[in-house]
Amino acid sequence: MKKNENTPFETEIQALEALVLEDYGSERAIDRLELFTQPDGEVIEDIIAKLFRVVFPGYFSDHTYRVYNLKNSVSNLIEDIAFHLSEQTAIALRGGEAPSEDGSEKREAERITAEFLRSLPAIRALIDTDLSAAFDGDPAAASPEEVIISYPGLYATTVNRIAHVLYGLNVPLIPRIMTEHAHSKTGIDIHPGASIGKYFFIDHGTGIVIGETTVIGDNVKIYQGVTIGALSTRGGQRLHGQKRHPTIEDNVTIYAGASILGGDTVIGHDSIIGSNAFLTRSVAPGTRVSVRNQELQFKSGEVRRDKKEDRGEGEVPEWCYII
Amino acid sequence: MKKNENTPFETEIQALEALVLEDYGSERAIDRLELFTQPDGEVIEDIIAKLFRVVFPGYFSDHTYRVYNLKNSVSNLIEDIAFHLSEQTAIALRGGEAPSEDGSEKREAERITAEFLRSLPAIRALIDTDLSAAFDGDPAAASPEEVIISYPGLYATTVNRIAHVLYGLNVPLIPRIMTEHAHSKTGIDIHPGASIGKYFFIDHGTGIVIGETTVIGDNVKIYQGVTIGALSTRGGQRLHGQKRHPTIEDNVTIYAGASILGGDTVIGHDSIIGSNAFLTRSVAPGTRVSVRNQELQFKSGEVRRDKKEDRGEGEVPEWCYII
Amino acid sequence: MKKNENTPFETEIQALEALVLEDYGSERAIDRLELFTQPDGEVIEDIIAKLFRVVFPGYFSDHTYRVYNLKNSVSNLIEDIAFHLSEQTAIALRGGEAPSEDGSEKREAERITAEFLRSLPAIRALIDTDLSAAFDGDPAAASPEEVIISYPGLYATTVNRIAHVLYGLNVPLIPRIMTEHAHSKTGIDIHPGASIGKYFFIDHGTGIVIGETTVIGDNVKIYQGVTIGALSTRGGQRLHGQKRHPTIEDNVTIYAGASILGGDTVIGHDSIIGSNAFLTRSVAPGTRVSVRNQELQFKSGEVRRDKKEDRGEGEVPEWCYII
Repeated sequence: MKKNENTPFETEIQALEALVLEDYGSERAIDRLELFTQPDGEVIEDIIAKLFRVVFPGYFSDHTYRVYNLKNSVSNLIEDIAFHLSEQTAIALRGGEAPSEDGSEKREAERITAEFLRSLPAIRALIDTDLSAAFDGDPAAASPEEVIISYPGLYATTVNRIAHVLYGLNVPLIPRIMTEHAHSKTGIDIHPGASIGKYFFIDHGTGIVIGETTVIGDNVKIYQGVTIGALSTRGGQRLHGQKRHPTIEDNVTIYAGASILGGDTVIGHDSIIGSNAFLTRSVAPGTRVSVRNQELQFKSGEVRRDKKEDRGEGEVPEWCYII
Repeated sequence: MKKNENTPFETEIQALEALVLEDYGSERAIDRLELFTQPDGEVIEDIIAKLFRVVFPGYFSDHTYRVYNLKNSVSNLIEDIAFHLSEQTAIALRGGEAPSEDGSEKREAERITAEFLRSLPAIRALIDTDLSAAFDGDPAAASPEEVIISYPGLYATTVNRIAHVLYGLNVPLIPRIMTEHAHSKTGIDIHPGASIGKYFFIDHGTGIVIGETTVIGDNVKIYQGVTIGALSTRGGQRLHGQKRHPTIEDNVTIYAGASILGGDTVIGHDSIIGSNAFLTRSVAPGTRVSVRNQELQFKSGEVRRDKKEDRGEGEVPEWCYII
Repeated sequence: MKKNENTPFETEIQALEALVLEDYGSERAIDRLELFTQPDGEVIEDIIAKLFRVVFPGYFSDHTYRVYNLKNSVSNLIEDIAFHLSEQTAIALRGGEAPSEDGSEKREAERITAEFLRSLPAIRALIDTDLSAAFDGDPAAASPEEVIISYPGLYATTVNRIAHVLYGLNVPLIPRIMTEHAHSKTGIDIHPGASIGKYFFIDHGTGIVIGETTVIGDNVKIYQGVTIGALSTRGGQRLHGQKRHPTIEDNVTIYAGASILGGDTVIGHDSIIGSNAFLTRSVAPGTRVSVRNQELQFKSGEVRRDKKEDRGEGEVPEWCYII
């Protein structure tokens, strides 16, 4: 693009560069944010990819796979994860400030990273139960391998289990970057603060939202479009840290599109919440909740397709629900 | 990271490596899975990308485009697809076992690959009808090119048509990896087993779920958030292979958020299913179904914003529906 | 794969190449489309990535960050954006035709590109308000940095603000490619034609659809699964350009799953639309709309799990709502 003499377009662009630089001189949040001192999303995605290889050792493309032949690959992988995770954690702990002179964030980040790696067997034990729950619960699953390789629910759950441990170790930002990566990939939005028991199964999953202070027991199944959320967040930042999301006890199934809201709402164990139910209060153990009598209207007769009056200028025909 | 002498952190990490390796010694599914002998997701995504170039020849960045000038590019592309698809199919057919001595999976994979490629003109004929349906049906579409380049519905439908042929040829795993790739990219979850007629149009699409044994006729339109699903999957693996999902006949439109469930449910031709309708039984041809009288409550008066009582501790105000 | 002598499989594949090439000889849209003369999706995604770095200067990984130290980086970045955006715009303006001899599309593309870059400070001013709205409105947000780095709502809103300016400058195709990229990444589908005021906040966001002719005022909050859409699009291409989508005035909150439809529908300022409400008509300013009395049925007693009769062959138990 560069030539010895500028074209008029190039000259104009250079003038516009000055305009943008001048715009940075304001004192707004957008101008002051020093994100370069924040964790790096790409590095964190890479850490997740490597953790998947550690969690599911079968992902190793090693044709002479035997448990202890993995030794070198796993060692390299874990050292790599440890290096990058502790570095990113130190950056997150500094919160945009310069490193302290005594190196305290670095030491704290190393302590957290070791603590996290120490919990990997416990994380893997939970994920093994999720895999069983997914395969046993879905007649469309042909094999456990299919679940690991292709199910978005297991992907999002695995990322939550990893991020939740880091969240519990008070790592800023990184856990949320991890779960938003999973959200982007799967359409399943689980806050890293959400606590989830054994044998958790999400089917399909797109549109699921599970809020920060949710507590979920064992053997829970959740389908696409379910919200486990807060009631009014009108309080905004004043509500930070409060329990705003429901508790779901053991053996509960929540069908597609249901919403369960509020920090005091408890869904008792062995309950079943029907599709599209909207619940803002607790239900006792063993309750089956369903939407009663959605009134449907059925009109017969061929529809006149592509006729102008179908657009219903003025009154909208009832059957004409669209986007 | 490696130095001649280890830092205390490095020493600790090395101890943790042993912990993880020891964890692999259990006999759980998560430990035994030999996924390295499974199809490779990245290779399969690359096959899909190449198939898009074959399906939509205009994707070729060749400024001297004429039908037969494409010859070399297309030839190379198809040979590349054939090589990788037959290789991945052989891996899938082995199901994690070692190759048989008589090379039977390789031969079967080559037979399947040839059969698949032979069906490309039929697949393209279907996709041409989908393109017409999308352009004709959406007033926001400025050109057919815009639909091909940017519409998630056409993307997901194209992947389904490819995966459905492989599913019909009894290829394990690969079809599902293909459709879950499309699900991740578009939020549209169509099982490769679903059978879809000509002139299929999905608008927007996020949150759509179409189950394995669904049968869809010609000229069907589906909007975002629609589920065409099973009733209770409580039977789990015992239901594998049964018809669990509805049949949608020709010329049916299903508006946003509707759910149609059950293997015996048939939506007769020329029917219109209104937004958010929840149907678990069949409707006759030409039926217009709508949700009747959703009772809405309207309260007027300025809302006092940012006041503490708005949070409704105790009783929740009816208007206060949130996540 | 190539050897001196073909295997039978290779010979078969070569025959199939001829079959596909022959298939291109038809006169269908799918055969005629010369997409190589269309904008390149990958280049446009790269332009978006670079615009994010310009919009949020903190994204620069430059440890000596001071406003005017950015000068060189920003200059290079803007020149790069200008070059690629004007090139892609010229391609889009040609609409698949050969460049005109007088170079008029190139000049027009340069004029548009300069106009777009000139509006960057105005775009940044709007995005700064969105950032405030997101941080202030979400108790789960720990810092503005977290919002910028990880919130899908701010991502989709930023892309819309960029694409909307290009849409207003009558650039074909490119704005839609931009918003569909954001849709794929976030599950939030905002047409570039939609006009959005200051302090806009999307929480969670998966499944949101905002149509082409929507007009949204200041201080509006929208949650996951909300549709702001058209009534019947049965008119198809005949409706192109008409106002088909609602107007949302200032200070409106629309909770999860609500649908607001129709070009004449106006939601008056300071209104609150409750979760799952389905609205096809206008409401006065200050109205709180909620779904009244969703009738829920509660049955108690332990559910007999995994029993065959649970499948409810014949009649479906009411609580048995599934996918």
